[in-house]
Amino acid sequence: MTDQLRTDGTLRHLLTLEGLPKSLLEHLLERSQSFVRPLGSPPALSNVLNGATVANLFTEPSTRTRVSFELAAKRLGAQVVNLELQLSSRVKGESMLDTVYTLESLHVDAFVIRDAEVGVPALVAGHVAPHVSVLSAGEAHVAHPTQGLLDALTILQRRQRFAGLSVAIVGDIRHSRVARSGWHVLRTLGVTDLRIVAPPALMPAAEEFPGVARFTSLDAGLDGADVIMMLRIQKERMGDADLPEGTGYFRAWGLTPQRLKLARPDAIVMHPQPMNRGIEIASEVADGPQSVIRDQVRNGVAVRMAVLAEALTSRGGRA
Amino acid sequence: MTDQLRTDGTLRHLLTLEGLPKSLLEHLLERSQSFVRPLGSPPALSNVLNGATVANLFTEPSTRTRVSFELAAKRLGAQVVNLELQLSSRVKGESMLDTVYTLESLHVDAFVIRDAEVGVPALVAGHVAPHVSVLSAGEAHVAHPTQGLLDALTILQRRQRFAGLSVAIVGDIRHSRVARSGWHVLRTLGVTDLRIVAPPALMPAAEEFPGVARFTSLDAGLDGADVIMMLRIQKERMGDADLPEGTGYFRAWGLTPQRLKLARPDAIVMHPQPMNRGIEIASEVADGPQSVIRDQVRNGVAVRMAVLAEALTSRGGRA
Amino acid sequence: MTDQLRTDGTLRHLLTLEGLPKSLLEHLLERSQSFVRPLGSPPALSNVLNGATVANLFTEPSTRTRVSFELAAKRLGAQVVNLELQLSSRVKGESMLDTVYTLESLHVDAFVIRDAEVGVPALVAGHVAPHVSVLSAGEAHVAHPTQGLLDALTILQRRQRFAGLSVAIVGDIRHSRVARSGWHVLRTLGVTDLRIVAPPALMPAAEEFPGVARFTSLDAGLDGADVIMMLRIQKERMGDADLPEGTGYFRAWGLTPQRLKLARPDAIVMHPQPMNRGIEIASEVADGPQSVIRDQVRNGVAVRMAVLAEALTSRGGRA
Repeated sequence: MTDQLRTDGTLRHLLTLEGLPKSLLEHLLERSQSFVRPLGSPPALSNVLNGATVANLFTEPSTRTRVSFELAAKRLGAQVVNLELQLSSRVKGESMLDTVYTLESLHVDAFVIRDAEVGVPALVAGHVAPHVSVLSAGEAHVAHPTQGLLDALTILQRRQRFAGLSVAIVGDIRHSRVARSGWHVLRTLGVTDLRIVAPPALMPAAEEFPGVARFTSLDAGLDGADVIMMLRIQKERMGDADLPEGTGYFRAWGLTPQRLKLARPDAIVMHPQPMNRGIEIASEVADGPQSVIRDQVRNGVAVRMAVLAEALTSRGGRA
Repeated sequence: MTDQLRTDGTLRHLLTLEGLPKSLLEHLLERSQSFVRPLGSPPALSNVLNGATVANLFTEPSTRTRVSFELAAKRLGAQVVNLELQLSSRVKGESMLDTVYTLESLHVDAFVIRDAEVGVPALVAGHVAPHVSVLSAGEAHVAHPTQGLLDALTILQRRQRFAGLSVAIVGDIRHSRVARSGWHVLRTLGVTDLRIVAPPALMPAAEEFPGVARFTSLDAGLDGADVIMMLRIQKERMGDADLPEGTGYFRAWGLTPQRLKLARPDAIVMHPQPMNRGIEIASEVADGPQSVIRDQVRNGVAVRMAVLAEALTSRGGRA
Repeated sequence: MTDQLRTDGTLRHLLTLEGLPKSLLEHLLERSQSFVRPLGSPPALSNVLNGATVANLFTEPSTRTRVSFELAAKRLGAQVVNLELQLSSRVKGESMLDTVYTLESLHVDAFVIRDAEVGVPALVAGHVAPHVSVLSAGEAHVAHPTQGLLDALTILQRRQRFAGLSVAIVGDIRHSRVARSGWHVLRTLGVTDLRIVAPPALMPAAEEFPGVARFTSLDAGLDGADVIMMLRIQKERMGDADLPEGTGYFRAWGLTPQRLKLARPDAIVMHPQPMNRGIEIASEVADGPQSVIRDQVRNGVAVRMAVLAEALTSRGGRA
């Protein structure tokens, strides 16, 4: 795999959280925290990326993540261009790499890439010039590293530690890049009891997620948890593969106020959004006092600022 | 309905012009005028919204209005993100409110919302945090408040008063948010003789528009008018509902140079655009000496600057 | 045709390179060169267009060219709005001119227009206010003036002169705006031996391109060339019109390493992109040591900065 770090150990690309040193993850969380502002306050602003250019290359629509990266880059002083490749370049037969080479020649410094296929971010990272960085904004089912970081930051803000915590990731683990990135970061950061909780049809293959505890009972999986990370279920997955649809899924696998009581009284509830309210999570829980879902969003822009600043200011010689 | 004003009487949201105090409307027009620059001069620029973020949430396409809001925000120093929800989030089943909560957590300060359904701007306004503002950029057939303000400003620039004026709003009144917002603002500002002029099929229900004079004859409605506000007719409404199509509509309801002579010699002609030239208005009139249509556009960006500045700088404590 | 120059000889519009004085072309290349930075360096930045607004009006998708113009304008300090007219205004029946008038009233200073039909940029240029400029970003098959300039700049950087050079333009000349703009600029700048090389089905009409040498043999056309400008072939043109498809076209008309040897040993290879690798050009050539394709892209943003700066700062009285 493409090396994400420079020879001096600084972050160049961010494609996956797998294998990143604990010290670097901790440093990124610390830098992210420095960009967090409470809701209602102005956002953190900086000019460390003045003169830099960030290109958002999204081949699947994701308003939420695109805007988060866009605002992160702009608030650091960078210029941002948005490219939705399904709408333009791809219909013209341009290959992703030719598009990237073109943008690189236009002095783009960082590519933020979201793609439904495995391998595109690493392919690009393997071909860009030495001063250019590639940041994954979601890659197929395998990685969503800034989501993993923002999830870790959210937990840290509420618990001040990872050791000793029980974290349950619940739902469609099999198809989830959020689950995989969460698992990588929380494992490295020292979460003691990491659980994946899913109906058998949504469990990942046996060789995946080594070291986690597997639960096919929601109640058992939630028992005593400090952190509950709910995942989005794709509606098109329900109704077959031995999965009940809609309200049936909610009855069996939805996080309700009643089920939440199985976790620790001060357990926090997370969700990467967008949520299917009434399917995987009850609105009373999503909007309730234990929910930190809006903190996750706020932390997302801080994490993206930190990662962009880290990747582009550690190049040596220029921002 | 959601209260649009803060307890100190300043503008927080702008969803409708209905019920806004005359003094506030006059203040907004005055502040708008301060942002007006002649064509050919550079636009007014300011930094009062430095550090603020404005999100354009458009669920129906409107290049014109989106660009006007976008430039207004940028020229005040704000950062702008554009979201066309039909293209991304909505296909993913996100609800408008979850999108808004997300953007709010990304430190968005103002939402500019355009939607074909009734109630969306007020729904959002009822759920955002206290420091956040919602501005309607067009809501179904019921309200288009910045259009109403720019229409009033255009009249004021040309007539220096509202009292004593005869204003004829002509065309598809029934389906027009422009007509409704125009009616609200001009009534409050004291227009003496406010007329709606439409074929019976395009007249609003009898209980709507109380206090206006109704004309189903174009010639009678134009007689002696100081201001003629033409409306756009949707082509899909013609050819049924007792409405003639195309040139037939133009013969019966188009504003021609001949018909314009029925109004006062110094009458001004307005149109919210986009125009159907040769349908509701003749090109000679649209481009003629009495047309103030381009002034309306220029005033539009000034009004949007005024409204954004007003809403976001009156929050107390921060821009 | 609309005059592109002001009465004082400065550039106002850029619709075509045909007829532009040699001295102006040389000045534009010199100014462009001042904005060129090596790959890996920060881009040239300026504030000469602070307070100016540039609108990209694209009716056919072109991520590459749109982003190049967008970054050029932003790096000069201008504000940029992007309009993809096929997605919004046009579906609403707005005419291009009404859209332009609207944007002009919003204080847009320059329109960058790309359109598949002949005549739209000139139409707009003929109707805008005196302080407004129109820049073509590609017009049907007839003109792509900034491409012509960046091609000339690329040649100049590598050869330091035009006189004495043999330049072969190869491929679908008949449908190519790149070929036409290249021909105009290189002829004026004094290229000695200008060749068009194409299969008969892709040759332009006999009265077009006066003064060039025509080759229907690729080998003969490449013989001794200093510069090879390859063109993109539209896949939909192959397979009929006496043109072989895919690999057949490549065998007959693709630029391979073997064929490249027919040109001078230091010949440079250009392509306007996007490339059909394996159709009109072999990847070994596109990525080989004689390729200057990435220089072309880098030069493109410099040329667009120069043209924007030239058009908007020579207005007198204001940027």
